[in-house]
Amino acid sequence: MSIKDKIRKLSHLKTDLYKKDFLLTWKKSQDDLKGILEVAEILKEMRDNNISPRVFDSGLAISNFRDNSTRTRFSFASASNLLGCAVQDLDEKKSQIAHGETVRETANMISFLSDFIGIRDDMYLGEGNKYMREVGEALDEGFAQGVLPSRPGIVNLQCDMDHPTQSMADLMHLQNEFGSLDNLKGKKIVMSWAYSPSYGKPLSVPQGIIALMSRYGMNIELAYPEGYDLIPEIVDIAKKNSERSGGSFNISHNMEDAMKEADIVYPKSWALFHIMQQRTELLKNADTEGLRALEQTCLANNAKFKNWEYDEAKKKLTKNQDALYMHCLPADISGVSCKEGEVNADVFEKYRIRTYLEAGFKPYIIAAMMFTNKFENPSKVLDNIMKRDRRRVGF
Amino acid sequence: MSIKDKIRKLSHLKTDLYKKDFLLTWKKSQDDLKGILEVAEILKEMRDNNISPRVFDSGLAISNFRDNSTRTRFSFASASNLLGCAVQDLDEKKSQIAHGETVRETANMISFLSDFIGIRDDMYLGEGNKYMREVGEALDEGFAQGVLPSRPGIVNLQCDMDHPTQSMADLMHLQNEFGSLDNLKGKKIVMSWAYSPSYGKPLSVPQGIIALMSRYGMNIELAYPEGYDLIPEIVDIAKKNSERSGGSFNISHNMEDAMKEADIVYPKSWALFHIMQQRTELLKNADTEGLRALEQTCLANNAKFKNWEYDEAKKKLTKNQDALYMHCLPADISGVSCKEGEVNADVFEKYRIRTYLEAGFKPYIIAAMMFTNKFENPSKVLDNIMKRDRRRVGF
Amino acid sequence: MSIKDKIRKLSHLKTDLYKKDFLLTWKKSQDDLKGILEVAEILKEMRDNNISPRVFDSGLAISNFRDNSTRTRFSFASASNLLGCAVQDLDEKKSQIAHGETVRETANMISFLSDFIGIRDDMYLGEGNKYMREVGEALDEGFAQGVLPSRPGIVNLQCDMDHPTQSMADLMHLQNEFGSLDNLKGKKIVMSWAYSPSYGKPLSVPQGIIALMSRYGMNIELAYPEGYDLIPEIVDIAKKNSERSGGSFNISHNMEDAMKEADIVYPKSWALFHIMQQRTELLKNADTEGLRALEQTCLANNAKFKNWEYDEAKKKLTKNQDALYMHCLPADISGVSCKEGEVNADVFEKYRIRTYLEAGFKPYIIAAMMFTNKFENPSKVLDNIMKRDRRRVGF
Repeated sequence: MSIKDKIRKLSHLKTDLYKKDFLLTWKKSQDDLKGILEVAEILKEMRDNNISPRVFDSGLAISNFRDNSTRTRFSFASASNLLGCAVQDLDEKKSQIAHGETVRETANMISFLSDFIGIRDDMYLGEGNKYMREVGEALDEGFAQGVLPSRPGIVNLQCDMDHPTQSMADLMHLQNEFGSLDNLKGKKIVMSWAYSPSYGKPLSVPQGIIALMSRYGMNIELAYPEGYDLIPEIVDIAKKNSERSGGSFNISHNMEDAMKEADIVYPKSWALFHIMQQRTELLKNADTEGLRALEQTCLANNAKFKNWEYDEAKKKLTKNQDALYMHCLPADISGVSCKEGEVNADVFEKYRIRTYLEAGFKPYIIAAMMFTNKFENPSKVLDNIMKRDRRRVGF
Repeated sequence: MSIKDKIRKLSHLKTDLYKKDFLLTWKKSQDDLKGILEVAEILKEMRDNNISPRVFDSGLAISNFRDNSTRTRFSFASASNLLGCAVQDLDEKKSQIAHGETVRETANMISFLSDFIGIRDDMYLGEGNKYMREVGEALDEGFAQGVLPSRPGIVNLQCDMDHPTQSMADLMHLQNEFGSLDNLKGKKIVMSWAYSPSYGKPLSVPQGIIALMSRYGMNIELAYPEGYDLIPEIVDIAKKNSERSGGSFNISHNMEDAMKEADIVYPKSWALFHIMQQRTELLKNADTEGLRALEQTCLANNAKFKNWEYDEAKKKLTKNQDALYMHCLPADISGVSCKEGEVNADVFEKYRIRTYLEAGFKPYIIAAMMFTNKFENPSKVLDNIMKRDRRRVGF
Repeated sequence: MSIKDKIRKLSHLKTDLYKKDFLLTWKKSQDDLKGILEVAEILKEMRDNNISPRVFDSGLAISNFRDNSTRTRFSFASASNLLGCAVQDLDEKKSQIAHGETVRETANMISFLSDFIGIRDDMYLGEGNKYMREVGEALDEGFAQGVLPSRPGIVNLQCDMDHPTQSMADLMHLQNEFGSLDNLKGKKIVMSWAYSPSYGKPLSVPQGIIALMSRYGMNIELAYPEGYDLIPEIVDIAKKNSERSGGSFNISHNMEDAMKEADIVYPKSWALFHIMQQRTELLKNADTEGLRALEQTCLANNAKFKNWEYDEAKKKLTKNQDALYMHCLPADISGVSCKEGEVNADVFEKYRIRTYLEAGFKPYIIAAMMFTNKFENPSKVLDNIMKRDRRRVGF
């Protein structure tokens, strides 16, 4: 399908993305998600063909990373740059925020000439998404009161609940691997816990995956050792999505069983739910002793499940012994990045390039979230970009 | 008045801003300051109407923050971006400057392709403004010797003497609140010290306020506890300005008395003058013990004046019990950002949005300083921008 | 010669720079180097005449500084900005790289929408250049496998072997000082070790200088105290270059002797070769004790050669007592940046501005490396830029 045909197809969707933040996939309609995927695809194809989709003559995209990041940071910078915005990082160490400034105030102070704010805040259960909503409310007030000339759109770059730029990139990858969203119906995807020697990994990736993939008629298998539950409300969402979409949803506590006849596997470590809750409390009280003890507990608990490694034997249990392996990266690869980890080195190597392809969709997903937030009629603007026909490089 | 009328009005001013640094408001003529305000207003209106005032196809704006900053950092980034310059931060920790490089050399090394340098250096009395002038002299030499193709303009983002981007934004806010600069005549503005549990706040905001507002026929009331004097030379400037502009200038040491019938109040903490001088010496000698002792002395001294809080009772003394409250933010709000601070929480809340509006002028003030530094005939360039009619977002 | 004539001259060169990384000058042909110099000159002249050579509507240039930098960081930012790319810094402290991510993976993760990667990695003998080649191979694979839409070009911003953006800027400076590359024939250049109280300075500058200048028929004098050898393979390259170009190559261990009748002198400190090798091992083993002891040894050894300072007496030995003094900056200036250092303060002062001019070529050298990497036919694109005639500032 030509770019122009894709734009025409896009124009038939009824999306409600204009001026809306992108915080949680489950707050978005099917058409919204489809719209993001289609805009992402069009932007990617434009850039691949040296057509510049730049729509900002000037503009600022604020990044606020409250946790480390390489891939998402570069994806956000790439998306911003492609559309014509400069990235300005809010480095809370270099700012005066520690002086007791409220979220409400900072949100306005950084937004006078800003178009987007990308936020990663994934460390504490019950905190990250709340923070994003607080920022959003402050921006709403600032805009309503005439402080801000426009309301910057917020992109959730990972919170405690969801990681929508990741899960949507993953969905775009699946669409690409299986040919269409329709083809995902009836496919079995295993979101499995896997062993890692590291501590405190967020729950947002597995939560994001089950809540999103359950909307496409897939058979979701969520597998983890007893105790490694996800946030119950999000598991409920996934269950209901599965019912509605004609898929299925199952939880198991045995990695081998889970892998049987899987089309897609996503073996990835995450922290113990109740540990994460305790951790949030300890961090609030700055209880260093308590935190150290908790880390030991957590690592010791993880270590009981070293057999939760995705290896050749488990791969053999999957459909045609060749389920599509997915990971948000970086994976803990046994013998490469750690002694024992989430995945066997040979197995990972077989799918390595495909995990890179998977990651490569993220910049376009973010750009699509920005684009649809800013333009009421994205297909019309995309059409104008085609007519303008400006090269990204050279002339 | 339409943008075009504003541009025509601007063209009648006799400014001397072209190729001049903006370091101290009291080195600028009335027309200079008016020119900055008018250009800022025009740029703001352009952006509010989606007209892009971008005048650089490429260009660099260097930021050199020797102290923490959120608002000014974002204001500088916003201004640079709006005009088409990328911000490049001179992070003295990541550079080789610690290796004994002289200011003279660094100033040239960062300026080969730079258009502007924004500097914040407000920590040490007698140092910050001196540093900016040294940078300026180095750039003059570099340009004269053919090292630099053009002379980057310096914008003072706060020094030990003045904080001109703040005071000019404050003036723009007052102009907006009271309708015109002329309407400021005869208004009483109280620049008052206020209690803060923090140590070493610069003197540049109160100094900048009294030196600038005294030029518009206002009645300046400078209030502070004995000992919290400002730099005498700058107080003298304010006094002379008041005489010349037909206003008045008074110093008092009682917050209640000062507030009576005030039209505008600016309650804000600052450090003890002689303490700041001692501190500079101790810092030069890296006397950690001495610094710690000094901090204790300073905090203990501050604590004697906890009643210097702007509260409901003091507000009741002002004109119509409703003087315009101003602050450069972040304020130390009692019970919010600290136990006891500069302002009562309820009082602050009443004027909170207006302090945000006040802060919102800063990016445009900075952009106007850059713009007038770069173009000999700003009104002509602004006129061309109107004719070009390029949208900032979309097309 | 007009810009257009220069572009015509450029079109006659047979370069092989398109889609090639710029890692080592000795892997490049004479025409390649000439091409870089000529493009750099044209870009500089364009900018000096307010002609914008911007060729990217959007684009990313990644900087990866594994060692501190001011000048090269700003040169890279300036070059990227001039061509229209935004700089995105890969700060390995803020990223998840410490989590055991492989070079291969990171290289791809940061490159989905990147056009260039500038790398400084000069700390460890045998490591820096190897790292750059590893990144390059990862990008080759990523591009071949469809992960990357294009292959970002790598610019070596200093490694353990070469510092090509420095040596090429130095060559451009010499061309400028002596009128042409041809005029460099027969000139005596002394690359001399000099005393410094600092430890572990890379060998890449002296190596880069002898390997490059030896290609232009110059008489190379490499002078250093016994033990301060450079990498033997690179000295061999310089020797062979000298033979081929009709120049000469000599090593001496007496600074006075070396300086006699020199046209150009480059007195600069570097570390002991075998010390640097030991250091790499100690760093790999994180042997803090060993490192401290080694530093003492190294500084003590340096201190034996405090008379290796370029001073008035040595200057008097040079051609007309006025050899052109060069330095990559910052220099260790006796009595200015250190007690005793590489160069006497009065001597340095005499040539100070010329060292600034020397440094000023670097941004254009980097821009030329980027430009020739991206365009198969640089003269045609430059010609189009002239025809477009877009101003960099104003309109």
